[in-house]
Amino acid sequence: MTKIAVAKGDGIGPEIMDAVLSVFQAAQVPLEYEFVDMGKWVFDKGFSNGMTSEAQQTIENLGILFKGPMETPKGKGVKSINVTARKTWNTYANKRVFQTLHGVDTVFSKAGIPIDVTIVRENIEDTYGGVEHMITPDVALSRRFITRPGSMQVIKYAFEMASKKGARRITCGHKANIMKLTDGLFLECFYEVAKNYPDLKADDVIVDDLCMKLVTRPDTFDVVVLTNLQGDIVSDLCAGLVGGLGFAPSANVGDHISIFEAVHGTAPDIAGKGIANPTALLLSGFSLLQHVGLYDKANMIENALLYTLESGVHTGDFGDRNKPSLNTTEFANAIIANF
Amino acid sequence: MTKIAVAKGDGIGPEIMDAVLSVFQAAQVPLEYEFVDMGKWVFDKGFSNGMTSEAQQTIENLGILFKGPMETPKGKGVKSINVTARKTWNTYANKRVFQTLHGVDTVFSKAGIPIDVTIVRENIEDTYGGVEHMITPDVALSRRFITRPGSMQVIKYAFEMASKKGARRITCGHKANIMKLTDGLFLECFYEVAKNYPDLKADDVIVDDLCMKLVTRPDTFDVVVLTNLQGDIVSDLCAGLVGGLGFAPSANVGDHISIFEAVHGTAPDIAGKGIANPTALLLSGFSLLQHVGLYDKANMIENALLYTLESGVHTGDFGDRNKPSLNTTEFANAIIANF
Ligand SMILES: CC(C)[C@H](C(=O)O)[C@@H](O)C(=O)O
Ligand SMILES: CC(C)[C@H](C(=O)O)[C@@H](O)C(=O)O
Repeated sequence: MTKIAVAKGDGIGPEIMDAVLSVFQAAQVPLEYEFVDMGKWVFDKGFSNGMTSEAQQTIENLGILFKGPMETPKGKGVKSINVTARKTWNTYANKRVFQTLHGVDTVFSKAGIPIDVTIVRENIEDTYGGVEHMITPDVALSRRFITRPGSMQVIKYAFEMASKKGARRITCGHKANIMKLTDGLFLECFYEVAKNYPDLKADDVIVDDLCMKLVTRPDTFDVVVLTNLQGDIVSDLCAGLVGGLGFAPSANVGDHISIFEAVHGTAPDIAGKGIANPTALLLSGFSLLQHVGLYDKANMIENALLYTLESGVHTGDFGDRNKPSLNTTEFANAIIANF
Repeated sequence: MTKIAVAKGDGIGPEIMDAVLSVFQAAQVPLEYEFVDMGKWVFDKGFSNGMTSEAQQTIENLGILFKGPMETPKGKGVKSINVTARKTWNTYANKRVFQTLHGVDTVFSKAGIPIDVTIVRENIEDTYGGVEHMITPDVALSRRFITRPGSMQVIKYAFEMASKKGARRITCGHKANIMKLTDGLFLECFYEVAKNYPDLKADDVIVDDLCMKLVTRPDTFDVVVLTNLQGDIVSDLCAGLVGGLGFAPSANVGDHISIFEAVHGTAPDIAGKGIANPTALLLSGFSLLQHVGLYDKANMIENALLYTLESGVHTGDFGDRNKPSLNTTEFANAIIANF
């Protein structure tokens, strides 16, 4: 049986992770879990990267981490635990799938515009290196690095994934008209890799234009690959298209270690109340199940979730305000009842 | 009578500028025009910044430029004429107003969500300086500069404008959680200026979250101020919310010179056919009229335009496909008929 590392995280993390694992258990998902200590609460105990060395060892041995949201510690020079994890394990591709969920109303679903966009974001480079300086007290400089190997690995991943899923189109988002060398290099890599996929329609769109098109004709896009910060922005835009971060799953993929997580935050205001929406984490769980080859289980759970949402059953954060809302555990049980 | 410089630009530029000026004339707008040579067609004659020195002199004397779209010349090291113009004259604030236009259907108008967002974008700094190098053939570096004076001047402009228009809220969009020094400096300036406007509700939102919120609850925003590239991306997103770049006006404001332009491109595919939509340039014209204090004329033309759009009259690029569409001149005349 495959064993994975699980970190429940901070805030609502433990509640939604418990709910998701209860769904996995009811579905008899053949996975074993090793729970690891990672999150802001571990940082607060003096572990500067937000995890114990046992946790790090376990994750590196098992190769797969399923994690709840983690709070970014405050303070100058302190880095986000999520970003540090991506970097530590070189999870160079961040894949986020955004699909219309029936039962989750948005302006697009109401207008009958179906959404099915996968964003692949480079996950390590760009200004995320955090190489910044004050040149004078009045002038700040941030260094934005884009490398050929870094670009190639995420773009190759995107094409391979797009090709496997039979994508209609793969698009490179960039700002190479202004950042001619950095984004120019990324774009060059994109078309270099494209040569190996003659059957895939590959094109590029300038990132500002891409955002305009995503809010007017999102149905024309399929897979979009971008550099880190632009990918961050475009991912959240796409999350908005399908109803918000509560419905946005995320997989951080590397050659040795992959991390599956919800994109939303720790929601401290509702933590501990047992009312959080576990959907995004559950959707990330599907990615995980697919990643380890458990396609049947992934489908079974996905169908039950979609059916549950479509039938108007929901947690309190969304859905028809006139219909009663369920708490986290009730919602998980409703999904289980629909297997 | 106030005299302004007018550059018709490339592609559809001359057609839409003629249409807009015919509307101005019919409205008896008390402006004199001095037409200047500026655009890709001037670049092609050997003027590397896309304008003759007479043009530059005239614009600097008059202080106001009304311009059509201009094509960016191709080639390594060649800069966009628009970006060069912004820089040459230090037009540090780019103001773009996005409002629901009745008669222009979007998913948001159909959902009954009214949009009235003004984006103020820093217009000079950030990676737009174009300071890039190849460190090795495989590593590209772009330097992103944010300065205190540069940030202060655009933020002061944004607050002053927001306060004058009685804004409900002014928001700083940024990524200071990752770019702690550069965006941190911008954010610091924002709250420093905010102190002088105790009656204005000032807050900040991380740019990815901002994009998510703009596509789900755009009606909660009023004025948003951002650094250059993030502002570029968010502006286009907002253009999408109201129907696309065909409805997106833009004012580049500096202390000595201001430029009013449409944000869209030169549309070479339809150039010369007389069918382009002059709405964005006309909307930019309103900003210009307000800038020179001609509020009555601005209102008169704006009302006529809104009435025209609302009554279902439109150019071929949008609106009800079952209703006949007008060409550029006919559309301008329809507006004039509604004075
Ligand atoms: C929390 C933040 C550092 C992070 C990012 O910018 O990558 C988040 O926005 C995300 O998308 O996972
Ligand atoms: C054409 C391009 C250089 C320009 C920019 O990035 O500023 C455009 O997108 C704009 O918003 O005016």
